Amino acid sequence: MAKPKIVMAGAGNVATHIAPAISFSGIGEVVQVYSWHIESAVALAAKIPGAKAVNAPAEIADDADIYLISVSDDAIASVVSALPKRDALYLHTSGSVGMEALAGLSERYGVFYPLQTFSKGVELDVRSVPLFVEGSSAAVEDQIREFASGLFGRVYHADSMTRKKMHISAVFACNFTNHLWSIAEELLRRDNLPFDVLRPLLVETLRKAFVNSPSASQTGPAARGDRRVIDGHLELLDGNEKEIYKLLSESIMASGGKG
Amino acid sequence: MAKPKIVMAGAGNVATHIAPAISFSGIGEVVQVYSWHIESAVALAAKIPGAKAVNAPAEIADDADIYLISVSDDAIASVVSALPKRDALYLHTSGSVGMEALAGLSERYGVFYPLQTFSKGVELDVRSVPLFVEGSSAAVEDQIREFASGLFGRVYHADSMTRKKMHISAVFACNFTNHLWSIAEELLRRDNLPFDVLRPLLVETLRKAFVNSPSASQTGPAARGDRRVIDGHLELLDGNEKEIYKLLSESIMASGGKG
Repeated sequence: MAKPKIVMAGAGNVATHIAPAISFSGIGEVVQVYSWHIESAVALAAKIPGAKAVNAPAEIADDADIYLISVSDDAIASVVSALPKRDALYLHTSGSVGMEALAGLSERYGVFYPLQTFSKGVELDVRSVPLFVEGSSAAVEDQIREFASGLFGRVYHADSMTRKKMHISAVFACNFTNHLWSIAEELLRRDNLPFDVLRPLLVETLRKAFVNSPSASQTGPAARGDRRVIDGHLELLDGNEKEIYKLLSESIMASGGKG
Repeated sequence: MAKPKIVMAGAGNVATHIAPAISFSGIGEVVQVYSWHIESAVALAAKIPGAKAVNAPAEIADDADIYLISVSDDAIASVVSALPKRDALYLHTSGSVGMEALAGLSERYGVFYPLQTFSKGVELDVRSVPLFVEGSSAAVEDQIREFASGLFGRVYHADSMTRKKMHISAVFACNFTNHLWSIAEELLRRDNLPFDVLRPLLVETLRKAFVNSPSASQTGPAARGDRRVIDGHLELLDGNEKEIYKLLSESIMASGGKG
């Protein structure tokens, strides 16, 4: 595959970031964007020189080298049934769907999962995103890596179980973390202080976590085993906030104040 | 106070950042650094043109306009007993000690609390740090604000109770968050993946939280009410990790998936 021809199936957040990046990096030529919503397909195709928008299965190119599926998990099966079955490489970008979902299309299929949260309208450097790949055979995985490595700086192997555990890690590191920020925002709001007062502290906490590792960077009352401060804080909290404060403090203390 | 003369009492992390910043910004002239550990005092004084290091109470200047105390909470009382009692302004930088700790020194005293985590050897732009102040009278608080505003970009009033609630917010937003990152690090380590694979995701999550507010940015299985994914994740966890996953998911769902 010198410069593979690619059909991008899907025009959502992930597709909107990776399809133009694939074309502009030169690792592939996105010839079509396929989506049921022709408006979305047109909007994405407009960002990719030479790409055409299509919304009917019959119009999908039957001479592509790679069919790249990036739709919501629930929609993968429908897209699979719409694609032509050929000796091409079929990939999906989902972290939680097994690669077997593509097994009926070809002998060459796999997963192409970028670990990042994408939003339309927010520019991101795709090259900095870690990519996790799995292929239907060692040779196929090599093809996927060869294709991806010209764009993504870091490409890792990850099977279904590893992707699942990675997802759990991301839930802790991002979704739960964001919820704690919401709680902090609410606590500050009650004192008429903007969440933004925590920004320098948060940026520095994140920086330290990556310089030293989070477990080595743990600070605060629980890390010091300071029961007096912990009890004083618990007195001012109730409901879920109190339960969360208690459980996380106990967990920090149980891990020797080291996270 | 055109350009107040300042005695910096303490040579720890906070003092090491704010004393040079005070001198270089021109808001004050740090004439002495006082610390029991003469080596620390010498090291900090060396960073401030014209500042002298002292470690004996008798050597502390009795003609300063401001005595700025930045030592560990437990050491404040000892430093107070060592300082000359004069008609000067006495300030401490602690978030958790009341300003009354300084009441025996003068009628003019207060709190000068920068909300940031400082580490020696890590450069920080002090101007971006929010400063929380409280004065023994309205006139004194005005003096503190006038002095501080030439260096700190944002100066807020905060009494003891507000500082305590701010500290609780920071525990949620930074200490607990860091603990969740430690858990993610440990989960990834079991699959031989570096914590660094989460960096782009974390940086983007933090960025979104400040663009839209964290409560508006909540994503993930609990925010979608996706019990199937949540149960699948819980099966792979145990101990504190499982309890934390459960409680935080419930809390996200209870807040309508909005943090």
